[in-house]
Amino acid sequence: MWELRSASFWRAIFAEFFATLFYVFFGLGASLRWTPGPLHVLQVALAFGLALATLVQAVGHISGAHVNPAVTFAFLVGSQMSLLRAFCYIAAQLLGAVAGAAVLYSVTPPAVRGNLALNTLHPGVSVGQATTVEIFLTLQFVLCIFATYDERRNGRLGSVALAVGFSLTLGHLFGMYYTGAGMNPARSFAPAILTRNFTNHWVISNKYWLFIGGGLGSLLYDFLLFPRLKSVSERLSILKGVRPSDSNGQPEGTGEPVELKTQAL
Amino acid sequence: MWELRSASFWRAIFAEFFATLFYVFFGLGASLRWTPGPLHVLQVALAFGLALATLVQAVGHISGAHVNPAVTFAFLVGSQMSLLRAFCYIAAQLLGAVAGAAVLYSVTPPAVRGNLALNTLHPGVSVGQATTVEIFLTLQFVLCIFATYDERRNGRLGSVALAVGFSLTLGHLFGMYYTGAGMNPARSFAPAILTRNFTNHWVISNKYWLFIGGGLGSLLYDFLLFPRLKSVSERLSILKGVRPSDSNGQPEGTGEPVELKTQAL
Amino acid sequence: MWELRSASFWRAIFAEFFATLFYVFFGLGASLRWTPGPLHVLQVALAFGLALATLVQAVGHISGAHVNPAVTFAFLVGSQMSLLRAFCYIAAQLLGAVAGAAVLYSVTPPAVRGNLALNTLHPGVSVGQATTVEIFLTLQFVLCIFATYDERRNGRLGSVALAVGFSLTLGHLFGMYYTGAGMNPARSFAPAILTRNFTNHWVISNKYWLFIGGGLGSLLYDFLLFPRLKSVSERLSILKGVRPSDSNGQPEGTGEPVELKTQAL
Amino acid sequence: MWELRSASFWRAIFAEFFATLFYVFFGLGASLRWTPGPLHVLQVALAFGLALATLVQAVGHISGAHVNPAVTFAFLVGSQMSLLRAFCYIAAQLLGAVAGAAVLYSVTPPAVRGNLALNTLHPGVSVGQATTVEIFLTLQFVLCIFATYDERRNGRLGSVALAVGFSLTLGHLFGMYYTGAGMNPARSFAPAILTRNFTNHWVISNKYWLFIGGGLGSLLYDFLLFPRLKSVSERLSILKGVRPSDSNGQPEGTGEPVELKTQAL
Repeated sequence: MWELRSASFWRAIFAEFFATLFYVFFGLGASLRWTPGPLHVLQVALAFGLALATLVQAVGHISGAHVNPAVTFAFLVGSQMSLLRAFCYIAAQLLGAVAGAAVLYSVTPPAVRGNLALNTLHPGVSVGQATTVEIFLTLQFVLCIFATYDERRNGRLGSVALAVGFSLTLGHLFGMYYTGAGMNPARSFAPAILTRNFTNHWVISNKYWLFIGGGLGSLLYDFLLFPRLKSVSERLSILKGVRPSDSNGQPEGTGEPVELKTQAL
Repeated sequence: MWELRSASFWRAIFAEFFATLFYVFFGLGASLRWTPGPLHVLQVALAFGLALATLVQAVGHISGAHVNPAVTFAFLVGSQMSLLRAFCYIAAQLLGAVAGAAVLYSVTPPAVRGNLALNTLHPGVSVGQATTVEIFLTLQFVLCIFATYDERRNGRLGSVALAVGFSLTLGHLFGMYYTGAGMNPARSFAPAILTRNFTNHWVISNKYWLFIGGGLGSLLYDFLLFPRLKSVSERLSILKGVRPSDSNGQPEGTGEPVELKTQAL
Repeated sequence: MWELRSASFWRAIFAEFFATLFYVFFGLGASLRWTPGPLHVLQVALAFGLALATLVQAVGHISGAHVNPAVTFAFLVGSQMSLLRAFCYIAAQLLGAVAGAAVLYSVTPPAVRGNLALNTLHPGVSVGQATTVEIFLTLQFVLCIFATYDERRNGRLGSVALAVGFSLTLGHLFGMYYTGAGMNPARSFAPAILTRNFTNHWVISNKYWLFIGGGLGSLLYDFLLFPRLKSVSERLSILKGVRPSDSNGQPEGTGEPVELKTQAL
Repeated sequence: MWELRSASFWRAIFAEFFATLFYVFFGLGASLRWTPGPLHVLQVALAFGLALATLVQAVGHISGAHVNPAVTFAFLVGSQMSLLRAFCYIAAQLLGAVAGAAVLYSVTPPAVRGNLALNTLHPGVSVGQATTVEIFLTLQFVLCIFATYDERRNGRLGSVALAVGFSLTLGHLFGMYYTGAGMNPARSFAPAILTRNFTNHWVISNKYWLFIGGGLGSLLYDFLLFPRLKSVSERLSILKGVRPSDSNGQPEGTGEPVELKTQAL
């Protein structure tokens, strides 16, 4: 429980709350239909991608800018953060998402609000097909994040923020036609709360399978593609929070060491 | 007042004038309606973003390429530049914006000019809602700039120019529907001067609330998310210009030291 | 045959299988026609480019993320990998492409499937013209990959992933009108298998000329534009797999040394 | 005349020929009208930008990838290359542009060729207005190139290729409506030759004023914004080719030293 006494821990929680608020506000807002006609898929996909890129740039060095419970879960499965931290991240993300959707609701003309860009299945797509699609979407996304945040790499990786953002854009370019491309349980959760649309939500939008995709991506990268030499006891002590993780699910080199951050307060 | 005797100071002022001239010229120009039909929001948003990215790339190491009084105000609030410098920057930005709009006016066929892409509210959006939207737009933008320009970071941040430019694009993808997405008082000021459209301007376009967003972003980043260990007296002596700022509101590592620049003249 | 006993070799093969599966799944999927009207060329071109960029980011340090038999052939011609490795890469790519197309087929409503974005010639374009176009498309693509992966360069190259991905996007922006812009024999092969459309396939889609383009690009870069000082015997021993290649067709600095990877298992 | 005996010199000339061939082939090709309706300005602007980005990535370390007589002229004015080299670059660029347009002509169905995307003025834009617009377009472009290639900078500049490419995209997003956004005399020259359309060409398309824009940009950057400490005699000896330039108009750090290149042959 030493983490609870660390200022950098609380800064990270606040950053996740704040970043998810912004992610949902900008992402859902850019998906509203101000003009009739079909949705401009490329524009929406770029808005989500640039929103994530901007937030990774802005708070990636503070919390890792997961902004997504499935991503936090993937880092937990990879034992890159403690259970306590993961739990607090996810709580902050859900609260942030609802807050973001609420602000969006209050600033948007009623005629434009619609269902606040709630994710809905294409009528021709079954729940089984949707599940497969969403697992694939999350899998490529989590693989890209794990490879991009990997502190063992030192090549010409360019901007962490753009890499992660464009991976999200890719998921939307494909997935918006099938399922609306949630790719983020918090983003799907918020408009369902705001519009009190629970009928389909607990079946479709409350995308528990995203956690499967996230976990799979984590195992695939960390055990098969680019294995880490961490022992089981090391992994357990990180999960319990007894021992700090090297990365904390944050891109390498951008986070101050924990000690320094604590001092800085 | 030693700054007034420094060549690099005047070069920075000239760079701000020049960059804002170009920003307004390209941004407003790409927003004109040459063909009937709705505005191509993605195209306009990318034009603004790439205009800023190009200018940050071109003069970021000379003045920081703020190009925006709200950004300069945010750096002032963060005590990263002197009051004198901030005042001169903002004056140069306003003059540059008017000059850019004037050049655009003179090269554009009258049928296309319209109101020179003056920012206007969507009829369904109240002034209060517009204020909230613009504060959120500016907040994410200033946070992204502060985190990107932060000389304490050393991770895989990629291009400063693209990070800042894409954050502006994001703001436009969301905000153009609500308020025309000023995000820059100088950009909103210039077409109002050129088209002598003051009625709405002083209420809507003269976006003093952007300064609130800028200041909030500065405080949020510098005091809460990633605090700086600067004492009050240090901050005051930078504001007074007695002591040079480390960053001067410029991205780290790209600016020559002040002495060298002065010598070079 | 020492490579067959190396864990990193099999990880690379698996990474190629996996990456090509994802490339075909996302690329073809984003090219389906969910709405009537002409294809949105820019959107499809960006989807292919961002798919490649994401995969280069995710597995570039594991296999080089060729995802493309013509690219692997080009690296073979440049004697940057062994014959054995090239053969296994290409087999993995073809299998991965068919698997990706099969998953896509199974999750897509029948009305949308069409011919699974099979590459087809524009009626006004002859096979000779198509060949020329595809050779030019592949030539610029392979040149860009060779220059970007070149471990001798140390300038401001930015992200390997984005450079390669945007080069693919460029090829699609030009080539989709002429030939559907295969640029990748595996990508063209998969929908032909899935839709059993072999009539045109062996003439048009089974783009053996892409290998010509790839080989030409390799020779042009490695012998003319930026020559490597490798002797013939060095080249032969790399091709035979007797001696490990420096680069293995992977971007510099991102691949762990072979020894370390083997240990890690 | 020592340059004429250097292998790297001839490689650079060949790279300019080849790169301009590709630039014109891809740029003009992506501007053809395959479907009725207005031109998709964003798509064309991105195609030109990504074409330049890909070529800077592929041959920037060999010749600088000017691909543009106005850019070469700007580097001459900045005394960053010899007169002889500049003359050979421009000749290679013009030849390459005509070759690229000829290949494009031969692979394109006659119904689609049109005037091969010849630059034409908007009917409402006077020659004087067009001149002003093109000078502004070239000015921002050359400033961005000079600042990006500047070997004295060491900040987070990201990819040279993307910075330069997106600056070109910006110019097209603005300028295509006014003048077709030549921004490159070679690109404007080639379709005029191919379609034998000289009437307007020598007035409008043969954009000698682009050289003014290029020269202005060079002077502005090198003397005013970020002055270089080069004496007149140094400048003259570089122009005469007596003394090699540090940069040769190439992005810093990416070019091998002249000696090494010569040995490599």
